[in-house]
Amino acid sequence: MDATEFRRRGKEMVDLIADYLENIEQRPVYPDVEPGYLRSLIPEEAPEEPETYEDVVKDIERVIMPGVTHWHSPYFYAYFPTANSFPAMLADMLSGAIGCIGFSWAASPACTELETVMMDWLGKMLKLPEDFIAGTHGQGGGVIQGTASEATLVALLAARSRAVRMILASDPQRPETGITSKLVAYSSDQAHCSVERAGMIAGVRMKKIPTEQSDKYAVQGETLRRMIKEDKAAGLIPFYFCATLGTTPSCAFDHITELGPICNAEKIWMHIDAAYAGSSFICPEFRPLLNGIEFADSFNFNPHKWLLVNFDCSTILCRNIVFLLNRLFHLTRGTHWQIPLGRRFRSLKMWFVFRMYGLKGLQDYIRKHVELAKEFESLVRADQRFEISADVVLGLVCFRLKGSNEVNETLLKRINNGRKIHLVPCQLSGQFVLRFAVCARTTESRHIREAWRLITQLAEEVMQELPH
Amino acid sequence: MDATEFRRRGKEMVDLIADYLENIEQRPVYPDVEPGYLRSLIPEEAPEEPETYEDVVKDIERVIMPGVTHWHSPYFYAYFPTANSFPAMLADMLSGAIGCIGFSWAASPACTELETVMMDWLGKMLKLPEDFIAGTHGQGGGVIQGTASEATLVALLAARSRAVRMILASDPQRPETGITSKLVAYSSDQAHCSVERAGMIAGVRMKKIPTEQSDKYAVQGETLRRMIKEDKAAGLIPFYFCATLGTTPSCAFDHITELGPICNAEKIWMHIDAAYAGSSFICPEFRPLLNGIEFADSFNFNPHKWLLVNFDCSTILCRNIVFLLNRLFHLTRGTHWQIPLGRRFRSLKMWFVFRMYGLKGLQDYIRKHVELAKEFESLVRADQRFEISADVVLGLVCFRLKGSNEVNETLLKRINNGRKIHLVPCQLSGQFVLRFAVCARTTESRHIREAWRLITQLAEEVMQELPH
Ligand SMILES: Cc1ncc(COP(=O)(O)O)c(C=O)c1O
Ligand SMILES: Cc1ncc(COP(=O)(O)O)c(C=O)c1O
Repeated sequence: MDATEFRRRGKEMVDLIADYLENIEQRPVYPDVEPGYLRSLIPEEAPEEPETYEDVVKDIERVIMPGVTHWHSPYFYAYFPTANSFPAMLADMLSGAIGCIGFSWAASPACTELETVMMDWLGKMLKLPEDFIAGTHGQGGGVIQGTASEATLVALLAARSRAVRMILASDPQRPETGITSKLVAYSSDQAHCSVERAGMIAGVRMKKIPTEQSDKYAVQGETLRRMIKEDKAAGLIPFYFCATLGTTPSCAFDHITELGPICNAEKIWMHIDAAYAGSSFICPEFRPLLNGIEFADSFNFNPHKWLLVNFDCSTILCRNIVFLLNRLFHLTRGTHWQIPLGRRFRSLKMWFVFRMYGLKGLQDYIRKHVELAKEFESLVRADQRFEISADVVLGLVCFRLKGSNEVNETLLKRINNGRKIHLVPCQLSGQFVLRFAVCARTTESRHIREAWRLITQLAEEVMQELPH
Repeated sequence: MDATEFRRRGKEMVDLIADYLENIEQRPVYPDVEPGYLRSLIPEEAPEEPETYEDVVKDIERVIMPGVTHWHSPYFYAYFPTANSFPAMLADMLSGAIGCIGFSWAASPACTELETVMMDWLGKMLKLPEDFIAGTHGQGGGVIQGTASEATLVALLAARSRAVRMILASDPQRPETGITSKLVAYSSDQAHCSVERAGMIAGVRMKKIPTEQSDKYAVQGETLRRMIKEDKAAGLIPFYFCATLGTTPSCAFDHITELGPICNAEKIWMHIDAAYAGSSFICPEFRPLLNGIEFADSFNFNPHKWLLVNFDCSTILCRNIVFLLNRLFHLTRGTHWQIPLGRRFRSLKMWFVFRMYGLKGLQDYIRKHVELAKEFESLVRADQRFEISADVVLGLVCFRLKGSNEVNETLLKRINNGRKIHLVPCQLSGQFVLRFAVCARTTESRHIREAWRLITQLAEEVMQELPH
């Protein structure tokens, strides 16, 4: 395919994409296929000779679409959102064409520099403390990661390196090997599984801090303080705490105003994982949830979740630690703060989105999702058969039928088997809970009401069949 | 921006991209900007109100392009190639629109399943041993990573986990903590820096095996055997060897037919990093370079380098280790063999490219690049003032002026300051060497000859000015 054919096929693809997104709600949101469905639909080997574009494109509906979970359907309420906006898609097309690999400034200066400035724009939108902003001289600033998982790991590695240095500085005779096996990191029992995995990768202990329903699933300062004390008494070295703002199960918020000073006093690196909730902090009314950021060493969230920037774009912002991350990776500023070396020109997406929505447009978008969640919450609260399982702070509603886990599991199965709407569950204090997350850019009140109509209809069926 | 505007703007973007790529050779390949150039060209904060698409698009030429290193210019000969093809770009547009996050089968079955089958297509194209193919029942198979760096790390983590298990199995009383600090991994002193970094991240010793010019920079079995013996005598536990096929400096090849049996006998995990060279193994004439694969535990290369699949697409294929990687990540097959959890629908790019080029088209593409490199080699060899610094096996030519490092450094500086062609250097046995890598899809013989004309012209200037 040459540029001439690309002009034609590219335009066809633009229409195909617009058609797909405009009509997405007519598709079953969750696919009706069995594991292994795809293999029999296509040959076992790549063709020897080229096929035509027509051959390929007609297989999109035949082979791919039947197996797609449509994350951008307004009837998709599972997991957390993943962003999808037209400005981001346009920027991504451009990024693909430029196709530079930004692993150093020289490898593509624009790629490194736009990223640094976009992270400053973001830091200012979030009203972060001055020392999280790079400016022209700062030691702070940010960088785009692929995912929150990588960001958590990068922060953990930086913390590990800082801890080892501090220990060696205070006791130069101590052998470096063996220090790691004494280190201990903490996160909430509500933290995302990627936090535990980061500990596993880095080869350090990661302890889960228990939380309670009565504390709204937030880590308590007292609990953290006690665990630190016990671990130190046992000869361990606490060095990292990953706080979560907006946990995956219930969107709970650790009290970082209380936890931060404890970490600072103990020289524990405090990283904040706000993968989902972080985007909302651009709204003044939600910004208080980030109070305590001044005690944090690093802060991460995913614009690719809720800020209309298509995957992948997970942003980590750091305070006075440029030099440290640089030493960790033996590399120069503004690049390489990540596990992979190569990277796309990802900041283009942020630039297009921030400019074409404007801060106000982005705030409106967040607010609309929160309002839709509140609307769903009211519907649930108005129905005596249901209960709300956790405070609704942002775009997630955790709810369940009053009754057994079994009845709720059955309800969820019915909902997903219907394929009209898609939800996933969570466990809260041993209870099986349904999570209703407002996800798609195009979700409106009518979709929420339709979803609720379906849920109550299925609930009635289930309750007639099962004791509860 | 709604779907209607996207239809219009998307088509404009397709034309913009086609224009960019059709006229790319008229641009200076390397930008003429100073660090920090971009910040003053754009506002310090995101706009409050939305801007129009016209506002944004006109800034591409004003802000971005002056700072872009044009990796797809036929005058770009730096680093190694990064792929860019029209079928891959079309697939990537679709992938962006579907925008599913493939972190589990249910999150998007098509995403997981197409990936598994594409990896089998790839394995068959490479004529890998049967146990690297998943099929419908196999324990082998592959998965797409973002980059080779991640693949090296994932393999190292799997090896670390296997080693710890083996040690505990043979000595159940031994405490698990402390084992890691006894582990030792190996790679060549020619290995990519990401290999050393993987060791650092996983917190294990990574030793560099010295290589010699007289051995063509390949790791010698004897050297590896000696280091293993010494390390074991010192109480360490050898567990991982990363062989390189196609090293970054000079495209050297470790002799895995000799090294593999040593690793197998010592229960050392052999990982093969063939980031660049791997793509060439689809050609029967280059496939012998992969002989010895039957001794490897895992094999990685980047279709996003040389197989026309746009970044990111780095493929790791493994032998009988599905269960092991699964245990490492506590997860189910065909997903999650990577550091990040979220992922794009990356296999779509492979599918489009493999079908629209066909195996023959891909082979032709590799062969053409190798021929262009041979053509450049002949030009160098025909000029008595120059020497070839390493065997030319694939698309990379390492060469230098006979003379001091200083004269070669000056030559390279002149070349890059001219901005007509772009090369990067390497160090080989203390010598400053120029690397000429055939990179762009559209490079033709005339570009090679023009590059050589420029190089010789600048060489003449430099030799007149400097003693050599
Ligand atoms: C709180 C939290 N942290 C981390 C993650 C993982 O995000 P990623 O896929 O970007 O690694 C999630 C995903 O939903 C999350 O909710
Ligand atoms: C031999 C080798 N390994 C690894 C890499 C790193 O590749 P990536 O950017 O995909 O991590 C390179 C890059 O050129 C390489 O040449």
